[in-house]
Amino acid sequence: MDRLPGFRDFYPEPLPHEDVWSADARNYIFEIWRGVARRYGFREYDGPPLEPLELYTTKSGDEIVGQLYNFTDKGDRAVALRPEMTPTLARMVAAHSRNYKKPIKWFAIPQLFRYERQQKGRLREHFQLNADIFGETDPAADAELLALLIDSLRALRLTADDFVVRLSSRAGWRDFYAAHARNPEKEYEFYQLIDKLERQDRAHSDAKLKELGFSLDEVERFIAAATPTVELAAILKNLEARGLADFVKIDYNVIRGLAYYTGIVFEAFDKKGEFRAIAGGGRYDNLVNLMSGGRVDMPGLGFGMGDVVLLELLRARKLLPVFNAQSDVFCLIEEEALRAESLRLVQNLREAGLVADYSFTPARSDKQYKRALESNASFTVKLERQGTGALVVRIKNLKTREETTSSVDETPKLVQDRRERATPLCAA
Amino acid sequence: MDRLPGFRDFYPEPLPHEDVWSADARNYIFEIWRGVARRYGFREYDGPPLEPLELYTTKSGDEIVGQLYNFTDKGDRAVALRPEMTPTLARMVAAHSRNYKKPIKWFAIPQLFRYERQQKGRLREHFQLNADIFGETDPAADAELLALLIDSLRALRLTADDFVVRLSSRAGWRDFYAAHARNPEKEYEFYQLIDKLERQDRAHSDAKLKELGFSLDEVERFIAAATPTVELAAILKNLEARGLADFVKIDYNVIRGLAYYTGIVFEAFDKKGEFRAIAGGGRYDNLVNLMSGGRVDMPGLGFGMGDVVLLELLRARKLLPVFNAQSDVFCLIEEEALRAESLRLVQNLREAGLVADYSFTPARSDKQYKRALESNASFTVKLERQGTGALVVRIKNLKTREETTSSVDETPKLVQDRRERATPLCAA
Repeated sequence: MDRLPGFRDFYPEPLPHEDVWSADARNYIFEIWRGVARRYGFREYDGPPLEPLELYTTKSGDEIVGQLYNFTDKGDRAVALRPEMTPTLARMVAAHSRNYKKPIKWFAIPQLFRYERQQKGRLREHFQLNADIFGETDPAADAELLALLIDSLRALRLTADDFVVRLSSRAGWRDFYAAHARNPEKEYEFYQLIDKLERQDRAHSDAKLKELGFSLDEVERFIAAATPTVELAAILKNLEARGLADFVKIDYNVIRGLAYYTGIVFEAFDKKGEFRAIAGGGRYDNLVNLMSGGRVDMPGLGFGMGDVVLLELLRARKLLPVFNAQSDVFCLIEEEALRAESLRLVQNLREAGLVADYSFTPARSDKQYKRALESNASFTVKLERQGTGALVVRIKNLKTREETTSSVDETPKLVQDRRERATPLCAA
Repeated sequence: MDRLPGFRDFYPEPLPHEDVWSADARNYIFEIWRGVARRYGFREYDGPPLEPLELYTTKSGDEIVGQLYNFTDKGDRAVALRPEMTPTLARMVAAHSRNYKKPIKWFAIPQLFRYERQQKGRLREHFQLNADIFGETDPAADAELLALLIDSLRALRLTADDFVVRLSSRAGWRDFYAAHARNPEKEYEFYQLIDKLERQDRAHSDAKLKELGFSLDEVERFIAAATPTVELAAILKNLEARGLADFVKIDYNVIRGLAYYTGIVFEAFDKKGEFRAIAGGGRYDNLVNLMSGGRVDMPGLGFGMGDVVLLELLRARKLLPVFNAQSDVFCLIEEEALRAESLRLVQNLREAGLVADYSFTPARSDKQYKRALESNASFTVKLERQGTGALVVRIKNLKTREETTSSVDETPKLVQDRRERATPLCAA
């Protein structure tokens, strides 16, 4: 019996098969994301992975249903596995915005789902860092969000040589559209043409644009000029103050497919152009109003960064650490008469916060030592009964091969002081 | 538009409404679970939240479907949101067991789903710590698993006064059954009667037991004697060596409803008996064989511990910390001319691993100071231009009210050295 197509099994490393994913690498990314978001003062939230279908059709129209993992539940409700977090977040924020100080800075790491019938072999789920700010219209909030995006990638050891955030503005495009066209109702259709420009045949794009009263030429000139709006100029200045200007460039090719963006829009890409977008987002000042049926009006902006492209990129750039078992201490039990005392020692080591392991059953001395090496332990400890009847602990540093003895009570502290790295409870 | 019945929204504390859950408390529990499991040398894995329906009917029979969140997907597959993790784990272990050293010690923190039509108002999802050991038949593995269960609860500051693990044995019950009954095919039916004994009317139980050739009296005498099997005695001795004997008692009232247990079975309860079971598990030596269609034969044992009962218990015993925003530094920007330099300072503080915040827009000095207090910052920092033109940072400890000055470059290190608590990136 196999898992469903498009879903992933996450195993501990070293990975047993190329068809499975690394639970360690996933957790490494999650912990970095979480650590950086907290340093920026973002608080974590979460919502249901299953939501009423209406939550998504309200925001994106009925055509979204074709891409959703949707079904009718046993209570006859039309429901969907969440394809994105923003509608859930807008619902949550609208319900209780009054109880939080503005600006609200929140993040989540949801698993998201899509069912695309045509694209077999493509994943149907992924995890995504979602970070959003509510209650602030000033471009300072846009800069803060972009800085978080940039620092999330920098914390994963990606540099300005590896990625760039292409920054654009729906407001800039809106002004351009208003100055050149006469059909306000075709505005979104125009944005969708721009969104596809880099992937489409030029003649085709030109013809389509002409239908809306534009020429490809004037569109391309607008993009090439890359003139920052007042808002974009303020954002660039803010990022420059932080020392992050190198990670951003104005690029009006980016416009984002979704209808609800109102201000800046942006996408992060690897600089070699080998992968799909690493992250994307923008400002959506009307979405909370829409999702709350007009009850709550609050500006918002946010981005999503998925785990799949990021893992591919980190692997390609050789920036993923090796995630073997990382043990602090392996307790060798060579005399069964000392098993009870050895278990007590293991317990004391663990209570002191150390990762400690041992062999469940009697095993030859060399086999236990081999297991200690396999578990990447920094130390072995071994109880010995002395001639006087007293117990001593023989501690061996497996790297330096230094040996020392200690009393049972002193051992946890001694090991703690001497281990070279912190227990990997938290990678960030 | 509201969330679906039985699903939870998780908000940052302080909670805005009694109808929502705390994302902070949930993460606190997750981090404790993860930290303790890692100290025990358990590695993390994960699998799909959606699985083929067959995965669950193979293990538990068709009657399970009534409790599942199951549906037909767009590819006409019968699928279900996972109601438990063990079938996924058994599938994963069976697929790649050869690539891992035994014993395999793994854990996961999945979200699980049930659709019970009749019980409106009850939750339809919860999170669960799942810890399992494969490849070891010795009771030492059972003791290790129980020690992990006990230490997971102790790490949440629960004591032997708060909870007890009621330990029983399917093997013990099997011997009792074999010695008293003549219908091997009624064995599981007998176990189900025992499972309900504490909740059923005595006369009813007695009548039902008589149908299987037992009297309630002899069953109650067996339970009251609580004679440990050889295996249980070894486990108790092992736990005693660790200093954990106070947390366990032999109690044959526990038998667990599921059919697949083969050895020990256990449940953790609060000692006041106010809540449902905190955790439960046991040994299932035939399950991998069953789930792999006979391809792989490997003993296993594990437990699950849910977040819902645990949160109720921790709240009732007042053991949940208060989770306000926890900021290290708030940067006051009183002169707009120094905003760029202040942003750079905030960036440097964050790059040094500190949680740093500031006001996006110009605000009155007292309002900024109030925001610093609301964010529970340990320090405020404020840039000042001196008469000489040089910049200095005025650092204020908000608890001691001590003030000091520093250069811009020295500030991150100075704040790091003086803060009282570690950045709460990792609660464990």
